[in-house]
Amino acid sequence: MVEDELFLEILLLLVLAKVFGDLFSKKSLPRVTGELLAGVLLGPSLLGIVEPKEELELLSFVGLVFFMLSTGLEVDFDRLMRSLRGGIIVAFSGVIFPFTLGYLIGIVYGFGHVASFGLGVCLSITAIGLSVRTLVDLGMLNTRVGLTIVNAAVVDDVIGLVLMVVAFSLAKTEVSHCAIALPLVCGASFVVASFALVRYVSRSIMLRAFIAKKIRSDRSRITLAVSLALLFGLLARASYLHEIVGVFIAGMLLRNMLSEGTEKEILDFTFAFFAMFFFAYVGVKTNFRVLTYISDLALAVLAAAIVGKVVGGFIGAKAIGFRGRDAVFIGCAMNARAAVELAIADAFYLLGIFSLEAFVAVVFMASVTSVMTPIMLKAVAKIFDMCS
Amino acid sequence: MVEDELFLEILLLLVLAKVFGDLFSKKSLPRVTGELLAGVLLGPSLLGIVEPKEELELLSFVGLVFFMLSTGLEVDFDRLMRSLRGGIIVAFSGVIFPFTLGYLIGIVYGFGHVASFGLGVCLSITAIGLSVRTLVDLGMLNTRVGLTIVNAAVVDDVIGLVLMVVAFSLAKTEVSHCAIALPLVCGASFVVASFALVRYVSRSIMLRAFIAKKIRSDRSRITLAVSLALLFGLLARASYLHEIVGVFIAGMLLRNMLSEGTEKEILDFTFAFFAMFFFAYVGVKTNFRVLTYISDLALAVLAAAIVGKVVGGFIGAKAIGFRGRDAVFIGCAMNARAAVELAIADAFYLLGIFSLEAFVAVVFMASVTSVMTPIMLKAVAKIFDMCS
Repeated sequence: MVEDELFLEILLLLVLAKVFGDLFSKKSLPRVTGELLAGVLLGPSLLGIVEPKEELELLSFVGLVFFMLSTGLEVDFDRLMRSLRGGIIVAFSGVIFPFTLGYLIGIVYGFGHVASFGLGVCLSITAIGLSVRTLVDLGMLNTRVGLTIVNAAVVDDVIGLVLMVVAFSLAKTEVSHCAIALPLVCGASFVVASFALVRYVSRSIMLRAFIAKKIRSDRSRITLAVSLALLFGLLARASYLHEIVGVFIAGMLLRNMLSEGTEKEILDFTFAFFAMFFFAYVGVKTNFRVLTYISDLALAVLAAAIVGKVVGGFIGAKAIGFRGRDAVFIGCAMNARAAVELAIADAFYLLGIFSLEAFVAVVFMASVTSVMTPIMLKAVAKIFDMCS
Repeated sequence: MVEDELFLEILLLLVLAKVFGDLFSKKSLPRVTGELLAGVLLGPSLLGIVEPKEELELLSFVGLVFFMLSTGLEVDFDRLMRSLRGGIIVAFSGVIFPFTLGYLIGIVYGFGHVASFGLGVCLSITAIGLSVRTLVDLGMLNTRVGLTIVNAAVVDDVIGLVLMVVAFSLAKTEVSHCAIALPLVCGASFVVASFALVRYVSRSIMLRAFIAKKIRSDRSRITLAVSLALLFGLLARASYLHEIVGVFIAGMLLRNMLSEGTEKEILDFTFAFFAMFFFAYVGVKTNFRVLTYISDLALAVLAAAIVGKVVGGFIGAKAIGFRGRDAVFIGCAMNARAAVELAIADAFYLLGIFSLEAFVAVVFMASVTSVMTPIMLKAVAKIFDMCS
């Protein structure tokens, strides 16, 4: 039987994550930061009411699966392919700088090469949802600046996916001590094959009509989505990748199979329950007391993340002909990090590659950049009078 | 980290439960029976691929919470109150007979009084969803016979709730060895107070308007529903009741707060994922090999369940003036058992009050009556030429 205590912990995490999320959302701050802070407050960092434990780990895992499924569902594969050309310069420039800085910090602080690589990856991936949402809030989504940011964020996501694949291949190799060739070949084959499948399915009108005819109820579509997410997660694992890569690809694949109604149901349930619990539980696993000992690492990571992204994005935007103020705005917009780096940091921590200190530093960096980016963007837009 | 094996088990249970559920549904058999059989097939009874374990237990628990929440959402409290007069005779008559037979079987087979009481309860509660669905399938929902069955099924549900409350109070008392008065007073107070709250909320147009104004997004409504379900589950536990009683009441309370769209999302997700997993996992926990040793108990329980319900329902229907063929149909329609008895049997088994044999006998009875009732009803309707 499930203990009263566990029951109460799940309830407290959900309610507080909702309250904090709504509060932050109302103040134009990222909802995810509020959810995280709810976990931080209830967890060992502050009140110590909720402690990390096995059973919560499984529920948090299910939450992560749903979150990555939803993320995949929101990425338009065709647009992703088209924007590969458009936003590629900004994205690469915006990745190279923070990645290099992150890697160097890892080396300076005596991490191994794999952990340093992972730290670089954690600094490189822009939170696409946060960027896009901030643009919508400012009414700047359909400006040239806005669309460049969206494109760059999508490309950044792909670069991030590749970096993530490499990072997890390296991580898995280090764990299993087998040759690096096999994971790389398997992992690359899985990504190429499943991308080809996503492309085929998204183009095949016949197949989509067939599926739409066969699977008519929302319930069947939800079951299909969850099953496919789990299947691709398992296939990714079998290909030496982390399951979230597979689940994300399953999400992109499903985008072309499900109705809008079903997609909405999955997204609603994910953000109303699964993801909220996942992020709150990430907060629980955070131990900010540790920060008092390693605050220089956390501050270095934070500084590298901000400087790397803003400068990298600025240089990229200038290179493709944007004016100075627009380039500043684009650089700032790329600064938000949240879900993906938390997922990677979480996985690396569970794999034993990241120390608790590195994990906390990434969580700290993601939290601070999540909170600061919308505020920063608002300020920049106001100073340069860019808002519509 | 979550093991590959666990990952695979969840996937297999979902996919097979979906396939079997759809197959049974297509053959006009209850979907839940197919889901159960998927678990039986994968579980120790047959293939032995999935074994019961802690982590699956938690996910199954979350599934049960969502299922009882959805059940509550489907019960119209006002109609429930109105039908208290209409279908009361049929319902009581249809409860007294199987309950008495079940209790007597328990005593004959050497169960304690609490377990015998529990067995009686498991035989008494008609599966309202199954009855109503069968009527819809036969196009007989809005006939006098059909509406009497619906009313009787609703009243039966209330009687079942009361019996369930008493059963769990007795069970908890036996476990905690404290006086019987306290649990009964606390439990009764909780039920009366929360029913009064449901009544108040369902009548209060002001409050509903206020909530509708305050909580506008589906996501917030879903979070509210899950949080309220967990809160009422905890309150029920604090009142010495089983959490499913509280969750069910929370469902009835929420029916008057949520939009139709949100209700649909919760029902869809419940039946596409949570409940499907719960029922499949109930199948996993079933061990039909045990039946070879205690088949006389299982057969006695099955016979008592069918004879008790059909004869009880028939006598009740005759008493309020129905013709013989209609009374036979009404008696047969009340025969379906499924979810609630499985939940009670599951809880009693986990509390250590039911032996595995008793648990399996109830699951067997619920499975057989679930499968046979729609077939029986179709046959009766055809013989007497009752279908529209």
